[in-house]
Amino acid sequence: MNIDGIPTRSLRAHPEQGVIEIIDQTRLPHALHWVRVATLDEAAHAIRAMQVRGAPLIGVTAAYGLAIALGDDASDARLLSAASRLRLTRPTAVNLHWALARMEAVLQALPPARRQAAAWNEAAAIAEEDVAQNVAIGRHGLELLGALKPGAGKALNIMTHCNAGWLATVDRGTALAPVYAAHDAGLPVHVWVSETRPRNQGLLTAWELAQHGVPYTVVADNAAGILMRTGRVDAVIVGADRVAANGDVANKVGTYLKALAAADNGIPFYVAAPRSTLDFACADGESIPIEERGGDEFRLVHGLDSRGVPSALHQLPARAAVANPAFDVTPARLVSAIASERGVCPASVTGLATLYPEAADA
Amino acid sequence: MNIDGIPTRSLRAHPEQGVIEIIDQTRLPHALHWVRVATLDEAAHAIRAMQVRGAPLIGVTAAYGLAIALGDDASDARLLSAASRLRLTRPTAVNLHWALARMEAVLQALPPARRQAAAWNEAAAIAEEDVAQNVAIGRHGLELLGALKPGAGKALNIMTHCNAGWLATVDRGTALAPVYAAHDAGLPVHVWVSETRPRNQGLLTAWELAQHGVPYTVVADNAAGILMRTGRVDAVIVGADRVAANGDVANKVGTYLKALAAADNGIPFYVAAPRSTLDFACADGESIPIEERGGDEFRLVHGLDSRGVPSALHQLPARAAVANPAFDVTPARLVSAIASERGVCPASVTGLATLYPEAADA
Repeated sequence: MNIDGIPTRSLRAHPEQGVIEIIDQTRLPHALHWVRVATLDEAAHAIRAMQVRGAPLIGVTAAYGLAIALGDDASDARLLSAASRLRLTRPTAVNLHWALARMEAVLQALPPARRQAAAWNEAAAIAEEDVAQNVAIGRHGLELLGALKPGAGKALNIMTHCNAGWLATVDRGTALAPVYAAHDAGLPVHVWVSETRPRNQGLLTAWELAQHGVPYTVVADNAAGILMRTGRVDAVIVGADRVAANGDVANKVGTYLKALAAADNGIPFYVAAPRSTLDFACADGESIPIEERGGDEFRLVHGLDSRGVPSALHQLPARAAVANPAFDVTPARLVSAIASERGVCPASVTGLATLYPEAADA
Repeated sequence: MNIDGIPTRSLRAHPEQGVIEIIDQTRLPHALHWVRVATLDEAAHAIRAMQVRGAPLIGVTAAYGLAIALGDDASDARLLSAASRLRLTRPTAVNLHWALARMEAVLQALPPARRQAAAWNEAAAIAEEDVAQNVAIGRHGLELLGALKPGAGKALNIMTHCNAGWLATVDRGTALAPVYAAHDAGLPVHVWVSETRPRNQGLLTAWELAQHGVPYTVVADNAAGILMRTGRVDAVIVGADRVAANGDVANKVGTYLKALAAADNGIPFYVAAPRSTLDFACADGESIPIEERGGDEFRLVHGLDSRGVPSALHQLPARAAVANPAFDVTPARLVSAIASERGVCPASVTGLATLYPEAADA
């Protein structure tokens, strides 16, 4: 995608310089700021501090991070330690493990002298596959959206959570790919964008949609239930950080609440996820590690003065205990379907096995 | 309640001066600032701008607002216009209507010359009844909490939403009354405090609990589901802005999502509500008007810099559409019990009729 001269690739690789550039997503939508990542430390930091976020983009960044790490030393020891360093940055998104395992398998089969070039090539291949997969997810997801029946003359009202657009991937996005596909195909679509506390990734989604001209409305996460109960949502589509073999879905905290509300109101709840997000080695959602992040992420919140104008900053008492689980698990029974690059399937062992027989058998 | 010299009455009446003082809750927990309310305009503003909030406190403030309004003119016309003005400040909390109807019934039976003094007396009576009712709710709610079985040696983990403590009432609170009663009785209790976007009333709850020495942890609204799924919540208790005759409950937006998560995890979901919150004239939740507030309430949100430190303020694009329903409706089927000043009952027509036969028959 390319909008008003802004390339919608979220990452630029410069193998000849041994660096990549990423968008510092912690500064969006305030500023579109590209950051140069030239060392293993910087790559690990970019992932941990959420300069890059979104399961697919985390995987791609880690792959490039490994390529960067091999720049001065491509020995077995270096490969192992760099991969291990990157693997520990964030625990929940399985794409990180998947991308590093794929990189290691390719590189370990090669002599050290050939590893650096191969690493850049393999990382680029992972990035290109991500784009192709997302285009395919958009196509399959569009079939799901096209089958929905909005009121006459009305736009299709899609609710999403967090950001699973091109910023969360290399391009197109996962959950937003079908939305972009619908919009581009002339299907009137409107997106309910959840704020996504505590990190407010909904603002990234709002920014993306605004760039692309897709109508949207930002709402508090708390509003999901009443919007669904009052007939204002035709479908929910979210991305995923890890899908277990039985179809349980780990995704940004709050996803489970939206899935419950969708089920209670007979609204389809779709998960868009490429192969790299599926973890066949993980039997169910109970086995997925859930990252606990620092309380500083929402210690500072805005307040309103007595005229109702946002102004003063209100601090939580410094001693206030804060808990901050970053993900939750939505049980497969609440997921209407999973859209992947191979098609659409039920969220179940047999459903996933139909699309990925080779992985399910392994 | 009286904590460290801070009186926990949320409102002070000065009939001899014809004014009341309220805490400007939009400035809490940053500053404890008392505001003098001396005119009908100021009373209406205090309610609309949420300087006072919480269904019971809105009702009491409106009653005093009427007393203030009759200071210079206690004619029928003035009584009618002042009540009508106050009634329009906020649509969802039925306590507002209940308190004004009660005031009008008393005052219309009197000649204008006797109305002003009677208005101050009746408003004070409503305030004192609120305190007594909340003490009783605390006692009945404590029976519910006492029947729960936390893990050995563990505190009882109570989740609440928004603020339904002494700040939301005249004293003690509704949902927090059983929590304070438990704490005062030596029952170890810990409260999960939801941030409650977009207005962050969770900070008011955190502030209240901290003042009273009750252990608590602040969490994002989105975290409710995973906390319940992982066994970290023993019960949910919330207040209400209006309970319909069939037990459907209108309360702060996001309540319905917590109720769904509680039901999905077999966790009791209790609603604490005094008589003034019950609307027997309202058949079910579908008939309850839901207030839509301005998008400015969450247009400004905090961001994090690339080190993960909250600092820069991120603005939503000025043109971004924002929707902001302030309440939602939790269907009675998701409510385990309602605790009122008369006792505990099922959330149903017959349940409420058992406690309030005179109202149900009317």
